[in-house]
Amino acid sequence: MAKYSLGIDFGTESGRALLVDVSTGEEVATSVYKYKNGVLDEYLPDGETKLGHDWALQDPEDYIRVLQNTIPEVLKSANVKPEDVIGVGIDFTACTMLPIDKNGTPLCMLDEFRKEPNAWVKLWKHHSAQPQANKINEIGRQRNEDWVPRYGGKYSSEWFFSKALQTLEEAPNVYEYADRFIEAADWIVLQLTGEEKRNACTAGYKAMWDKRLGFPSREFFKALHPRMENIVEEKMSTKIYPAGTKAGEITAEMAKLTGLRQGTAVAVGNVDAHVAVPAATVVDARKMVMIMGTSICHMFMENEKVYVEGMCGVVEDGILEGFYGYEAGQSAVGDIYAWFVNTCVPPEYFDEAKRKGIDIHALLAEKAQSLKPGESGLLALDWWNGNRSVLVDADLTGLLMGCTLNTKPEEIYRALIEATAFGTNKIIKSFEDKGLRIDELYGCGGLPKNKLLMQIFSDVTGKEILVAESGQASALGSAMFGAVAAGSKVGGYDNINDAAKNMARVKDESFKPNKDNHAIYKKLYAEYEILHDYFGKGANDVMKRLKAIKSSV
Amino acid sequence: MAKYSLGIDFGTESGRALLVDVSTGEEVATSVYKYKNGVLDEYLPDGETKLGHDWALQDPEDYIRVLQNTIPEVLKSANVKPEDVIGVGIDFTACTMLPIDKNGTPLCMLDEFRKEPNAWVKLWKHHSAQPQANKINEIGRQRNEDWVPRYGGKYSSEWFFSKALQTLEEAPNVYEYADRFIEAADWIVLQLTGEEKRNACTAGYKAMWDKRLGFPSREFFKALHPRMENIVEEKMSTKIYPAGTKAGEITAEMAKLTGLRQGTAVAVGNVDAHVAVPAATVVDARKMVMIMGTSICHMFMENEKVYVEGMCGVVEDGILEGFYGYEAGQSAVGDIYAWFVNTCVPPEYFDEAKRKGIDIHALLAEKAQSLKPGESGLLALDWWNGNRSVLVDADLTGLLMGCTLNTKPEEIYRALIEATAFGTNKIIKSFEDKGLRIDELYGCGGLPKNKLLMQIFSDVTGKEILVAESGQASALGSAMFGAVAAGSKVGGYDNINDAAKNMARVKDESFKPNKDNHAIYKKLYAEYEILHDYFGKGANDVMKRLKAIKSSV
Repeated sequence: MAKYSLGIDFGTESGRALLVDVSTGEEVATSVYKYKNGVLDEYLPDGETKLGHDWALQDPEDYIRVLQNTIPEVLKSANVKPEDVIGVGIDFTACTMLPIDKNGTPLCMLDEFRKEPNAWVKLWKHHSAQPQANKINEIGRQRNEDWVPRYGGKYSSEWFFSKALQTLEEAPNVYEYADRFIEAADWIVLQLTGEEKRNACTAGYKAMWDKRLGFPSREFFKALHPRMENIVEEKMSTKIYPAGTKAGEITAEMAKLTGLRQGTAVAVGNVDAHVAVPAATVVDARKMVMIMGTSICHMFMENEKVYVEGMCGVVEDGILEGFYGYEAGQSAVGDIYAWFVNTCVPPEYFDEAKRKGIDIHALLAEKAQSLKPGESGLLALDWWNGNRSVLVDADLTGLLMGCTLNTKPEEIYRALIEATAFGTNKIIKSFEDKGLRIDELYGCGGLPKNKLLMQIFSDVTGKEILVAESGQASALGSAMFGAVAAGSKVGGYDNINDAAKNMARVKDESFKPNKDNHAIYKKLYAEYEILHDYFGKGANDVMKRLKAIKSSV
Repeated sequence: MAKYSLGIDFGTESGRALLVDVSTGEEVATSVYKYKNGVLDEYLPDGETKLGHDWALQDPEDYIRVLQNTIPEVLKSANVKPEDVIGVGIDFTACTMLPIDKNGTPLCMLDEFRKEPNAWVKLWKHHSAQPQANKINEIGRQRNEDWVPRYGGKYSSEWFFSKALQTLEEAPNVYEYADRFIEAADWIVLQLTGEEKRNACTAGYKAMWDKRLGFPSREFFKALHPRMENIVEEKMSTKIYPAGTKAGEITAEMAKLTGLRQGTAVAVGNVDAHVAVPAATVVDARKMVMIMGTSICHMFMENEKVYVEGMCGVVEDGILEGFYGYEAGQSAVGDIYAWFVNTCVPPEYFDEAKRKGIDIHALLAEKAQSLKPGESGLLALDWWNGNRSVLVDADLTGLLMGCTLNTKPEEIYRALIEATAFGTNKIIKSFEDKGLRIDELYGCGGLPKNKLLMQIFSDVTGKEILVAESGQASALGSAMFGAVAAGSKVGGYDNINDAAKNMARVKDESFKPNKDNHAIYKKLYAEYEILHDYFGKGANDVMKRLKAIKSSV
């Protein structure tokens, strides 16, 4: 009898359940639930309580509805019995966090806090804690905190303590009332199992935790805010577990809600990007996995810890147990192409795509395909949404140069793809400059279906790119960790390597660098790097000054 | 009985006749003839003889057809008798030149040269004489030729001796057979009157002539090519006349062809841009006239001669007698907006324009109008077709920066307009840096109907811009010089000042700088200037390197 594992992937707009055959990795059923309340960025669900600029909240009841809707549906559509589902894994956007009471109930679900924005789930892209992040960075640098280099020099407004400090400063009653602040990934595990077992990934990448050093000192938190001194002891947990650990088992109540068998193993939570690494077959050092979509998240593992310029973090056990997990990223990739297609492509192109029965990206790729590297004379800086790695600077902006009266849309489209590939290459070079070796690249997410793009990334980096076979790598990765949490005795696996060997695969076709193209791209990349440093490292801060003028008028 | 003057304006694609009431400047009739053979840039009219890259020729018979078609038509449609037309003025693109035999017949009209490209008219935008221009510049600088600073440091491939040297090098038989090389403006006057009286404007701006120094020395021409030593004596004329001089009178043959009265006064030829200066009412120093169309030509007059970085030329009597005429230019202006509209504007915008019954430029201007200076955060370098003044560098390319995922088409459109205004401002500043005062700007050509654009030019430069009332300022200017050639005795004028007083006017509405906008634009212009110098003056020659890569692949 086949055994199955369930991966549940909580995204920005929806949650997805994926039922996977444990022995083969076959994806037997999937179901998506679109959050009823979506992203709350203007009003709370009451439709009355207005939110400030740059706020982005979510409703935790939406997460419960994902469980309630998608799990019964996959069981039903695959015709799989609950007793044949041996494990459950969870991944989540991060840092997505919330305050809960001592029963684990989100404060926003209590009547007295229903209209208090700070009582709700702060979604990863909630950006209004920038003043708090600035304070954290300033004090961190003053005090030479050890987390500063681990985060590539800068702590983000998106992360845990920026958001917690915002709650304390803006809604001290919420802060006081909160029994704990918790990542949504860990909260959903708590709901499923009754166990609070926090995951090393979010703790490490978002909450300054280090396997050897733990959390920062009381003195540091006190310097941030006197009432924050004991936040770790009072409002968090120091029990942190690596991915694949069994967190607990499905409770009777949850069995009833989801149709799963009570007692089914549940793995500790994880981050959506990180959980995709083994789903792309990578369980080893020296292979970089790129989650390629609206943005790119770059992850890879090594046996040693070095500090690399502008990376998002290095966390021991942060991706897989036994490795230092490195993360870097580009803040806009697919988003730039989408912007271009929505903003800068003339009617004739849409007409032609319609005539040919293909989508506009396919048409542009078809036209751009016939161009040689360098043929357009264009060069761009891929900073349409700032630069995450390696400059960590949200105030940088996009640049396009080399335009002539003959410049065509497909040339700009290709230049934008090349620019994002240069951005990835810059990240790779930063790691390599510190002596870390990256032998192969692995792509997953929505973009790898664009073959032109993948070939350009290969030609620019000079590296082979393998592509994960699964179109839902995060959910698959979660299912794999679910199988590990279950263990081999019940038909699962004892470690992620075994799970990856059987459940994950890459496509037969990989992208190998073309030597001639790589030679030209080396020249173009050299130009990219000069502009990158000129505009990104203070020689000419024109982009920041333009932003300052923009906000002053 | 009213008296009339006829202005004939030879453009790139067509020729135009304009009949003007001499006492009032009223434009009573106009007629346009589109050249049958247009611009020859692929084949000669035989459809067989293939032209090289960057060639642009014309057929002189097209010019005769302009006379034959348009002059009878304006006389007829205005119902004006030939005896009431007292003068004719001619303006032409320049440097547009041709080899002729001793009878004045273009060599391309002789059977033996019919298939020889170098025997045809080389149009102003014929660009294949770049190697010759390079040689001229190199030797000119080595020999410290006095024309070097007069041309702002660089002689163009578009100009007279580049084109003549190309003929000598590529088709020595054409060079030898040619009795003279002549500007098309002077050739058409020769056809009309039988008199070869060359004009100071093309001689000065295109052929290195100076009122006091004459042409360069034999030694210089010998250094270019041994057989070129005596080009001035052998193949040109040293009789050069300022604008407004009477060249001669309509011959019997031409009276028959055109319907004009034999004996009608004809002024010496002129350049289309320069002749527009008095048509914009400017007959004095310190007023800059801008011919604003696909490109901008900037002209103004002063009583003294100074050498300004990157101007196209300073010529005594070059615009009006008694002044030093200065010329500078931007190689693409309206062309950039047209490129943008054709290449980068999405379908919804065209749909909206259609719904509103306005053209796409009007729609973009309407949307861009509501933006404040600096609000888009964008900044561009207006180098889509290289930079004429002040950098004189065809290898520079366009740049756009400040792009974000929220950047909208109308923001880019406005940024491109602003960039061209910054380009004009840079030219003005170069003159002012040398102590020349520019008090007012005057616009003519096709662009001034775009009020947003004109206001931006005024806000950027901080100067008032007046707009010529005539929509055909070149033809009007020619008619004014025709009236001067005729003289006051027959109802014309004795000088261009009197002609301008009566025949030229500006619109009531001018564009005055908005103080607040000017203050913001000063900041943005400071950023433009930093980028201008960084990319344009050797600190980072990335644009040239991209072009080199482009031509190597």
